[in-house]
Amino acid sequence: MIFDCVVRGGLVATASEAFPADVGIRDGVITAIGSGLPPADHEIDAANHVVVPGAIDVHTHVAQTYDWVDADISDDYESGTRAAAAAGITTILNFAFQEKGQPLRAAVDAELQKAEGRAHVDFGLHIVVTDLSVPGVLDELAPLAADGVASVKIFTVTTSIGLNDADTLRVLQACAGLGLLVSVHAEDEALIAHLTDRLLAGGRTTVDNFPHSRPPITEALATARVAAYARTLDCPVYFVHLSSRAALDAVRDARSHGATIYVETRPTYLYLDESRYALPDGEGGKYVCLPPLRSLDDQQALWDGLRNGEIQTYATDHSPWPAALKTDTAKPFTEIPAGIANLGTSIGMLYAEGVAKGRISLGRFVDLTATNPAKLFGLWPRKGAIAVGADADLVLIDPNRRHRPTAAGMQSRVDYEPYEGFDCLGWPVLTLSRGDVVYQDGAIRSAPGRGRFLPRTPHQPL
Amino acid sequence: MIFDCVVRGGLVATASEAFPADVGIRDGVITAIGSGLPPADHEIDAANHVVVPGAIDVHTHVAQTYDWVDADISDDYESGTRAAAAAGITTILNFAFQEKGQPLRAAVDAELQKAEGRAHVDFGLHIVVTDLSVPGVLDELAPLAADGVASVKIFTVTTSIGLNDADTLRVLQACAGLGLLVSVHAEDEALIAHLTDRLLAGGRTTVDNFPHSRPPITEALATARVAAYARTLDCPVYFVHLSSRAALDAVRDARSHGATIYVETRPTYLYLDESRYALPDGEGGKYVCLPPLRSLDDQQALWDGLRNGEIQTYATDHSPWPAALKTDTAKPFTEIPAGIANLGTSIGMLYAEGVAKGRISLGRFVDLTATNPAKLFGLWPRKGAIAVGADADLVLIDPNRRHRPTAAGMQSRVDYEPYEGFDCLGWPVLTLSRGDVVYQDGAIRSAPGRGRFLPRTPHQPL
Amino acid sequence: MIFDCVVRGGLVATASEAFPADVGIRDGVITAIGSGLPPADHEIDAANHVVVPGAIDVHTHVAQTYDWVDADISDDYESGTRAAAAAGITTILNFAFQEKGQPLRAAVDAELQKAEGRAHVDFGLHIVVTDLSVPGVLDELAPLAADGVASVKIFTVTTSIGLNDADTLRVLQACAGLGLLVSVHAEDEALIAHLTDRLLAGGRTTVDNFPHSRPPITEALATARVAAYARTLDCPVYFVHLSSRAALDAVRDARSHGATIYVETRPTYLYLDESRYALPDGEGGKYVCLPPLRSLDDQQALWDGLRNGEIQTYATDHSPWPAALKTDTAKPFTEIPAGIANLGTSIGMLYAEGVAKGRISLGRFVDLTATNPAKLFGLWPRKGAIAVGADADLVLIDPNRRHRPTAAGMQSRVDYEPYEGFDCLGWPVLTLSRGDVVYQDGAIRSAPGRGRFLPRTPHQPL
Amino acid sequence: MIFDCVVRGGLVATASEAFPADVGIRDGVITAIGSGLPPADHEIDAANHVVVPGAIDVHTHVAQTYDWVDADISDDYESGTRAAAAAGITTILNFAFQEKGQPLRAAVDAELQKAEGRAHVDFGLHIVVTDLSVPGVLDELAPLAADGVASVKIFTVTTSIGLNDADTLRVLQACAGLGLLVSVHAEDEALIAHLTDRLLAGGRTTVDNFPHSRPPITEALATARVAAYARTLDCPVYFVHLSSRAALDAVRDARSHGATIYVETRPTYLYLDESRYALPDGEGGKYVCLPPLRSLDDQQALWDGLRNGEIQTYATDHSPWPAALKTDTAKPFTEIPAGIANLGTSIGMLYAEGVAKGRISLGRFVDLTATNPAKLFGLWPRKGAIAVGADADLVLIDPNRRHRPTAAGMQSRVDYEPYEGFDCLGWPVLTLSRGDVVYQDGAIRSAPGRGRFLPRTPHQPL
Repeated sequence: MIFDCVVRGGLVATASEAFPADVGIRDGVITAIGSGLPPADHEIDAANHVVVPGAIDVHTHVAQTYDWVDADISDDYESGTRAAAAAGITTILNFAFQEKGQPLRAAVDAELQKAEGRAHVDFGLHIVVTDLSVPGVLDELAPLAADGVASVKIFTVTTSIGLNDADTLRVLQACAGLGLLVSVHAEDEALIAHLTDRLLAGGRTTVDNFPHSRPPITEALATARVAAYARTLDCPVYFVHLSSRAALDAVRDARSHGATIYVETRPTYLYLDESRYALPDGEGGKYVCLPPLRSLDDQQALWDGLRNGEIQTYATDHSPWPAALKTDTAKPFTEIPAGIANLGTSIGMLYAEGVAKGRISLGRFVDLTATNPAKLFGLWPRKGAIAVGADADLVLIDPNRRHRPTAAGMQSRVDYEPYEGFDCLGWPVLTLSRGDVVYQDGAIRSAPGRGRFLPRTPHQPL
Repeated sequence: MIFDCVVRGGLVATASEAFPADVGIRDGVITAIGSGLPPADHEIDAANHVVVPGAIDVHTHVAQTYDWVDADISDDYESGTRAAAAAGITTILNFAFQEKGQPLRAAVDAELQKAEGRAHVDFGLHIVVTDLSVPGVLDELAPLAADGVASVKIFTVTTSIGLNDADTLRVLQACAGLGLLVSVHAEDEALIAHLTDRLLAGGRTTVDNFPHSRPPITEALATARVAAYARTLDCPVYFVHLSSRAALDAVRDARSHGATIYVETRPTYLYLDESRYALPDGEGGKYVCLPPLRSLDDQQALWDGLRNGEIQTYATDHSPWPAALKTDTAKPFTEIPAGIANLGTSIGMLYAEGVAKGRISLGRFVDLTATNPAKLFGLWPRKGAIAVGADADLVLIDPNRRHRPTAAGMQSRVDYEPYEGFDCLGWPVLTLSRGDVVYQDGAIRSAPGRGRFLPRTPHQPL
Repeated sequence: MIFDCVVRGGLVATASEAFPADVGIRDGVITAIGSGLPPADHEIDAANHVVVPGAIDVHTHVAQTYDWVDADISDDYESGTRAAAAAGITTILNFAFQEKGQPLRAAVDAELQKAEGRAHVDFGLHIVVTDLSVPGVLDELAPLAADGVASVKIFTVTTSIGLNDADTLRVLQACAGLGLLVSVHAEDEALIAHLTDRLLAGGRTTVDNFPHSRPPITEALATARVAAYARTLDCPVYFVHLSSRAALDAVRDARSHGATIYVETRPTYLYLDESRYALPDGEGGKYVCLPPLRSLDDQQALWDGLRNGEIQTYATDHSPWPAALKTDTAKPFTEIPAGIANLGTSIGMLYAEGVAKGRISLGRFVDLTATNPAKLFGLWPRKGAIAVGADADLVLIDPNRRHRPTAAGMQSRVDYEPYEGFDCLGWPVLTLSRGDVVYQDGAIRSAPGRGRFLPRTPHQPL
Repeated sequence: MIFDCVVRGGLVATASEAFPADVGIRDGVITAIGSGLPPADHEIDAANHVVVPGAIDVHTHVAQTYDWVDADISDDYESGTRAAAAAGITTILNFAFQEKGQPLRAAVDAELQKAEGRAHVDFGLHIVVTDLSVPGVLDELAPLAADGVASVKIFTVTTSIGLNDADTLRVLQACAGLGLLVSVHAEDEALIAHLTDRLLAGGRTTVDNFPHSRPPITEALATARVAAYARTLDCPVYFVHLSSRAALDAVRDARSHGATIYVETRPTYLYLDESRYALPDGEGGKYVCLPPLRSLDDQQALWDGLRNGEIQTYATDHSPWPAALKTDTAKPFTEIPAGIANLGTSIGMLYAEGVAKGRISLGRFVDLTATNPAKLFGLWPRKGAIAVGADADLVLIDPNRRHRPTAAGMQSRVDYEPYEGFDCLGWPVLTLSRGDVVYQDGAIRSAPGRGRFLPRTPHQPL
């Protein structure tokens, strides 16, 4: 019973338990959870704090470029994982986008290259399949999974990366056979294009028109369609950033027919609503994301789903762009790059708006941010758990800490803070990654490159 | 780090985690979970075993008499908790039925009297409210809750105990204010009575007619009604022994409107189906329970609900009656006492049929049998968890043990085993209650009276 | 081809056809529909008019007293049928309410007594069953049906007349056997009582609180329940004055399970909405009806249902009370007598708001107001049709006539006009009943007593 | 009142009425409906017969060739309309398929060419839009509609003719603007292709596998999708040959959101079921049609929908192929040409199985076969009605006539009768087209070429 470090006297919270205890760490791994553990050289006082597993953000976009945006996304692996560490996120899953004509392996290698020596916390990769015409592309999935890139994402929208229905089915079938979970960005490509063209043709180009180009029916339709495909092929699927009551109803319906469906939502839909698009002077553009912000009724549906267990995960879809790009009123809404900076605030906001306000339990909070993501994406029990043998990725939340998000306080390189104005009670104050303190009280304590690539196993059911 | 007992080398499984570790126990309480804990006087070798929290069976009927059955139920607190201990159940919640005209306190006292000196494992009580005409009856709920009888059950059916709609609403309103969870036996009284009368009037009195007297619509209707009441009054409700796809659809619909609904199912519906009622020579009568066994399609819906997280708990509704009473072909089906013996087999069957066959994960198994019941009924974190500070109620499951349930092997006093014929892989082999071995390998190691009354706190959300 | 009267040159509109033709009448019956019919002594010029079957209002309350209202309803058979004649309604079905302890026959006789020598147009009676404890009460249904009182109404609400679930089932079963259609006023008694008591206990007694005492869920719940009963017993049911999207969804769901359900809506829900209850100075009380006025979204759902054929009939539930009784702010909302005057305006309003505004076709208009009611309630083909052999009950609508409903213009004796303020294009201008002109251009041309009691046959499916 | 012909003494049945009357005809048009009409040179004795409007079959495939079938369909305009006349069908709407690259006008002209001088009864054309890449193709719709080709059909499946989602939306948008009703063959192309490939790859090539390549979910998905598109664009749509409960549920759901959806079903789904595909010796191939025959539960759902008014029309999709082509066991099921001969039996079968067996009323029968099709497709009031001014297209049904469909008794040139074995009570015995007897008691009385092309107006709402 010798420890390098003991986190002492906190309220240890897992997805299922919450109890006062000490957590003993050796060689970066949790080796004991007990009462009155013997002292260690490194003692962390967790009294009056909640100790939770480091969050796993399974949906980030750092260091990415898109052929349809003439700019780099604001964060790379260094600044992105720095923001993560400060937020209480100890693992991110970023995306390796297959370029047209490219083998998947090349996409993964390119992404690993970008990450090389840059990350503060651990990271893994989903492979985004965008081109099934590449010979043997689906045969690459098994060896990639064996190397730890053990999950796939597809889009039903966005011309240059979206798959048509036939290719969607091929991917689902291949992944069902390999036990790989398929993440799906589900919006109806054709209907969105049609509505968008109609708006533009009618001169309705300002950002307040943006939500009308992608009403909830566009999300619900694609969700229902992919869910039906998945049910027919007996393939679990995972819907990213679900935003609307209509889409959640489509999921419920599919589950009632026996489908295995997982649902992720993201900060934007829980704390903001579509009224932002009406802000003057192009400010509305700051909130352009896909799908769009929704109504307060949709927001309530998502909170209900979190509480009832119908939504399994919470992830950021962190996609920060400079404010100047987002608020340029000279451009139609279709040219505003989509995405919002969420990494730095996501965990604190969910604690403050969810747990502290009594909307969700502490157990749900841990499940949504750490345990469920770890299981679904093959990181469990190494990550996402406070368990003997698990990596000592721990976060201390001070339930009495007040925090107001500001642009100045961000670790992310983006130049505006979408949640400015919120006054939060309860906020993460210390982050351990594999036993190392990487963030404490406003200061980053790690160096780029200490974060490691995480090979993952296939999907584990909840 | 001194322990009275160490459970060593098992796979420790909570609702959210599963990892190899030792569990250290002192004074009946878990004080550490770690790797390589120091030795204790009492060492339990858990190698190659799964160590789970003792199950909490929140729905038992031991030692009960009903004015409409001219016999005693087969088990009392002694034999019932003996069966529980052998099964891996370390807590039962039994019912204190208010008699007509009786204050609730008197019902609780009478039930405690019956339990006095009899129980092998810990127990608590739900109060069954049956008569709101007793002056001040709802005012009794708060002091009873303060004394640990902190949950209420109501019936929508059965003449002498069922509440009408108005009284149902009064109970829901009172419990919403007190934070008490209301368990509901939901079947439509009027429709069942009408269909039953029609069958009897048509001479259809044999047990194969029984399911036609209570088709799924009767359950779905009452479920929808109470769920709508609960939603309108903002009161969480808990549906006991849900049996049908139609009723689960009613729950889904209510959740989609924001209701907080919990669902329990029971062994009978998962392992048996309505074809049993067609067995010859009155054998069908052995399976009379309320609601009746359902179709294989309903069974599939329940397994889907367990897997998808739409069903939160699993409890036995243990209600054993002598075979002679159940199979008397001289009587119409309406006179067969309802209920089946489930205590002795429930945990083993769910492990074998659920976990071992890959239908649900080990985590779901723990959640359904221990953690969720503990939270919903105010026993958590003392019960239902493997956590520092929790009671050392632990069960060792041998995943390689084959077990065939037989009447001869039962601890329950009932004289037939409804699951005879099943061949199970994986079965509980040792049960610890507050650190005491109460059952090991076929033998009870406890004495009546060691089980204690458990005061409970109000409902905690999941 | 000799006619007493020819209605010449109109656009003859039935529920399925619309064509220019002459209608030849002899002895009060239509004997030919043709082009260029030979002249008759009595020629009615219908050029530029629409000729439709006289409307059948299957839901009126004239000459009724209720033990819970200390006043007479404003209209009796004379003034009520006078209003009907002016409106284009040539048949009304009024209600014979069984008093507690009374045989049904006595209720019918009493009602016939009230009607004796009073009616301007033909009328029939539904029997309202309110007390099943009267010996042999259900055995009365067959002889009453044989005498032409061939339909039954029940209430699920209102203490002194509502049936409980068991009695509801008994009535449905009896009527299924006799082929009698059961009209149902479906609201959930218990939930309404509970919410009402809560409002009153909280001092919320003014009429703006009224809709909160009967939210749509109260209607949807009772609708779903009775629909499920009806489906189980294979008995068609007819829901009167359906008001909400939620209730219509309950009907759709029941139909998807094979139930035969008919739906009626009434003028109030199509032209008015719940904002009326917020009118100052007690004015809101004028609009108290059961169920309450609903939201604009509910209104849209009803128009969609009319257009899609999901709603089969349109009837007035004419229940006029003096304004003084309705607007007395000294009384809580529970003491305002429920009901609104609709007889005089219903047909004109549906033509103007429905047909003229393009919301429904002319065929639907005829089906809703005449043909469907005639079939469902056993008057077809004698009534509700422009057909050879049918009674010459015809109405001429002038599609270019502007009409503004006012209290001064009413034939009803009630002293306020709820639709004041509407400016209608298209209005009935002439009414024939069995070949007699009973109304023309603002003037009644009939005498009390010319209207006859109409014996009806049982329900005919659509 | 001079008539060329009087149909005397029948029960005249329209969609809304049924009454004994004579029908007077002059110059091929109905000029009077009355009792005791004066005699004419040509008297038709209709005593003890039902007189209904000639049926309008809005969905036939005569004289068509498909690039994927190496044979001609068995019937051309001559034999097809001969079969129609014998069946009681006085109007067919056939399809003008746009070939790839072809302007729509050319397709229409080619089809008219085929029909020239061949038809026994009147006919019209839908234009099938298959290629939106043809310049100006959607601009052709308005002039074509002006020339009477005033409806459009699209397919979501079948490679060479199906439209993708984007083109589907363009067609819907264009037709919404023009008031043209869009018929849709809705099956999910991608899922069917995927399942088919999987079956073939697994060696499951025999016809009993055929239904598994197109399960109901494939129909429901496409139905829901197009219905959502239509609702979003405010465009009414018409689903052809709806076959399944799942698809009908999708329609109900869309209607509950305000969509205007019309539904057609066809004989095959009402009288046959999927068990036919298991017939030995390739016999199952005779029943290959798209979508496939379904289960008995689906069949019940369709009958319920007909009775409840949720299905508006009944049409044949007559597509006859020689038995040898259909039953060739050397070929995989994918090479069996789809389609079944329904023209000769459809009306008689619906009368016998529907009206005579009490499943639907006589009014519904007329609405489904004549009046609704006439309105939806712009033929009303000239066709589909027994009304003054309407074409004298009349059919006499003898309700006491027994008929057993046989191959020998067919007017169609196809060499097998799919409904052989049915014993029908009630069958059409005489057909009038524009006042001419074209069929009587087994004998055709017309000559090719008497049938005329029918220009149609746009869609009229029901």
